[in-house]
Amino acid sequence: MNDIELIENALYGYIPKDLVFEKNLVDSIEYSLKAGGKRIRPRLVLEFSRLCGGGDKEALPYACALEMIHTYSLIHDDLPCMDDDDMRRGKPSNHKVYGEDIALLAGDALQSLAFETMSKAAITDSRSALAGVKCINILSSYCGTAGMVGGQVIDLENENKQADLESVTECNRKKTGALIKAACEMGCTIAGADEEKILAARKYGENIGIAFQIVDDILDVTSSDEELGKPVGSDAENNKSTYVSLLGIDECKCRVDKLTAEAIECLNVFDGDTTALKELSLKLSDRKK
Amino acid sequence: MNDIELIENALYGYIPKDLVFEKNLVDSIEYSLKAGGKRIRPRLVLEFSRLCGGGDKEALPYACALEMIHTYSLIHDDLPCMDDDDMRRGKPSNHKVYGEDIALLAGDALQSLAFETMSKAAITDSRSALAGVKCINILSSYCGTAGMVGGQVIDLENENKQADLESVTECNRKKTGALIKAACEMGCTIAGADEEKILAARKYGENIGIAFQIVDDILDVTSSDEELGKPVGSDAENNKSTYVSLLGIDECKCRVDKLTAEAIECLNVFDGDTTALKELSLKLSDRKK
Repeated sequence: MNDIELIENALYGYIPKDLVFEKNLVDSIEYSLKAGGKRIRPRLVLEFSRLCGGGDKEALPYACALEMIHTYSLIHDDLPCMDDDDMRRGKPSNHKVYGEDIALLAGDALQSLAFETMSKAAITDSRSALAGVKCINILSSYCGTAGMVGGQVIDLENENKQADLESVTECNRKKTGALIKAACEMGCTIAGADEEKILAARKYGENIGIAFQIVDDILDVTSSDEELGKPVGSDAENNKSTYVSLLGIDECKCRVDKLTAEAIECLNVFDGDTTALKELSLKLSDRKK
Repeated sequence: MNDIELIENALYGYIPKDLVFEKNLVDSIEYSLKAGGKRIRPRLVLEFSRLCGGGDKEALPYACALEMIHTYSLIHDDLPCMDDDDMRRGKPSNHKVYGEDIALLAGDALQSLAFETMSKAAITDSRSALAGVKCINILSSYCGTAGMVGGQVIDLENENKQADLESVTECNRKKTGALIKAACEMGCTIAGADEEKILAARKYGENIGIAFQIVDDILDVTSSDEELGKPVGSDAENNKSTYVSLLGIDECKCRVDKLTAEAIECLNVFDGDTTALKELSLKLSDRKK
């Protein structure tokens, strides 16, 4: 089984069962969890946990929790009162299939499920509990006002105005970067790594998080609808300031390479085999979708 | 300082500060957290913790987390794609003031903040961590698909149809009952109570939770807009099946008294002074708003 299969296998096992009255809600949750994607965040949890000597069995619940939070954010982002996107990963977005009310509640329930999944894994003994609450604290703080949701708000406020590079960077650092950073820190934390390693993982995550968003902005200009699974050119259409509109494509590509190289350098503090994390960051910087 | 002041004092301390770009979001969170209410859930956490020998300082973060979850659920419930309510507690509902997008995100952020608050409190040492993850597990499972959000879905599905008593009870047991039950269990858990006491607290919570909802249904028929702080008669207007429409007012009042008496009986397993919890359940059954 490769890592994506390993993650998806565990992830789908957390989809609630045996709920008679709430079938629609469960179907809606399942629809979005099974919509594919690169599973980058859970893969980062697994890789950093392995690098710090942790077992996959212990890391998987935390990896899955991150993917649940990411999935809930996509469902809520697509809602009509937010980005109003009809398509996601080449399929109709959640609310187009299940309605706005169910999509809203599926997102809410997925956020709860993430914390339920982590706390259930952490409940076995005091040692697990302490590592577990640390991970819960990382994820909850990176997905709230000071992280992902805060980034969303900046994104909304930047709509239809000429935002500057500082505000676009602050937005992306939180909206996309926070969860990627969380993944790297959580992987180390669950494996019991020391503070130096957690800091290096955070820095790695920060760098690939910004690089990831710059590549997203580039692809919105250079890719095709089919390749991307959603309409390209949406940033320009929405008059949105992006790295590309502010810096131009050449400077953007240059920054992606620099950020990726800096990320790889952060891996030097680890003793183990960092090949997988090096390859992951290079692949992300060179992706076509 | 009475308990409501104690709770509100702690609760308002968790409102995020120093966020430059996200002022709107923080204002929206503050608006709903400060909108008043009876603070029943956090009071139950405190009272059960005290009854089991716990300190208020340890219980308060968990009490506040519950109120954050309750507040997020009210913000999302009022959204146009849900109940579409313009008023809440005598004031315009959150999205009428801050817009749907910010209201949605404020709810999302409040849910994260609840788990951030609990995990931060639990992080001090292994003993706190274990009690903390137990509380996080209780709250996350009672507010997701098998609890509050599941109840919301049943409520949506029961709209405009003649729902039976079983389905109305299942809805209320989850939509309103789950968080009240969570409060009672969390109070005992954080104070380190044994399984027998936690079970008794759950049963107490179950009883007053259903009684609470029956009183709500009664008040929707017998109260006035001013007294209730929201439009009365909304259930009948929405063709909603309620305890009152299914059982009639007299049978409803009878059931409230019976459930309250049974709740009070559950308190017998506790050694400490149960006066406050007895009074609370009696007050809730006799409330006018």
